Amino acid sequence: MGRHSDAKQRILDSARVLFHARSYSAVGIQEICDHAAVKKGSFYHFFPSKQALTLELLDQSWLGFEQAFISSLLNPERPALQRIVHFFKLGCEMQQRLLDKTGCVLGCPFGNLAMELSTQDDLLRAKLQVFFQRMETVLEKALLEAIRTGELAENTDTKLSAKAMLAYLEGLLLMAKTGNNLQDFTVLSEMALKLITNRCKD
Amino acid sequence: MGRHSDAKQRILDSARVLFHARSYSAVGIQEICDHAAVKKGSFYHFFPSKQALTLELLDQSWLGFEQAFISSLLNPERPALQRIVHFFKLGCEMQQRLLDKTGCVLGCPFGNLAMELSTQDDLLRAKLQVFFQRMETVLEKALLEAIRTGELAENTDTKLSAKAMLAYLEGLLLMAKTGNNLQDFTVLSEMALKLITNRCKD
Repeated sequence: MGRHSDAKQRILDSARVLFHARSYSAVGIQEICDHAAVKKGSFYHFFPSKQALTLELLDQSWLGFEQAFISSLLNPERPALQRIVHFFKLGCEMQQRLLDKTGCVLGCPFGNLAMELSTQDDLLRAKLQVFFQRMETVLEKALLEAIRTGELAENTDTKLSAKAMLAYLEGLLLMAKTGNNLQDFTVLSEMALKLITNRCKD
Repeated sequence: MGRHSDAKQRILDSARVLFHARSYSAVGIQEICDHAAVKKGSFYHFFPSKQALTLELLDQSWLGFEQAFISSLLNPERPALQRIVHFFKLGCEMQQRLLDKTGCVLGCPFGNLAMELSTQDDLLRAKLQVFFQRMETVLEKALLEAIRTGELAENTDTKLSAKAMLAYLEGLLLMAKTGNNLQDFTVLSEMALKLITNRCKD
């Protein structure tokens, strides 16, 4: 079951898997310890609380998300707008892999926690808000690049468009999770670019 | 604290308020009973479980939602597309009222539970899926009416457009909840009509 030196990472990995499969409140520290095959004392050696574990877990998850998803939005090999379509496609592929593995559409690990915890834990809420803002910033970068290359009009409201597209993606993930079905996800996600909007002229 | 004959409704009202303010898992039967000022035995007289309570609560919430929101989508006094804009506006106004009252953007009561429970409770998931499908159907009716009155092209894909708009609304509510802020909600929700899409010609 791995050495003691892996214990902290095993706890983080277990919490990530269990929270994603169910929810934050549904998973207790004891269950995380059992899943990670560590003693409860070991948990408290590394983390003062479930909240502290989750804050660290979120930072780790963000790094994984950056490598797997954000990098594709910044990759200059594709035209900028196609990168956004590809970003949505990667999201769908990840959901499909998890569905194949678990039998459930698990949804966005950040969106899930944000929905469950935003009214209950202001530290976790604020961290998740920062992550969404970062995603918006990277979507906006792709839109700015699309303006630069002439794919989009100069007066595109990049900030508003990025916010709209991210909200749409999160909403699609919620709908897919509720239907436990990715059937419409691809065709719906291809409609995200319709949300690109121009600034008013006044 | 009201008569025994109100006890069932008080339990339902308490569960609705507490689930919406926090989450399903975070609120236990004892807390619901305390909030409703009923004894735990009384709870089990009416409901065999928290799940049974929630199934009944959801049916009641749907009736309230129909009166407050769905009716506006079917109201012939407004042109059909304006009804959709108005539907989003009503959602924003309700969130603002709850924010003023509680200090928190509480989000969609259906979306919250769907996100939290879809992988954990298949009965609740299926009921929430039906509600979302009903919302899509009513949005689609407004789009069909807009085709009839010439506001939209004949080849509008009403089903896909309705799905996209509902997902977008749920995503906007999640983003507002995560930011605990309705600042962008109005301007973003006005962009929902951009998701109206036409059928492919093949």
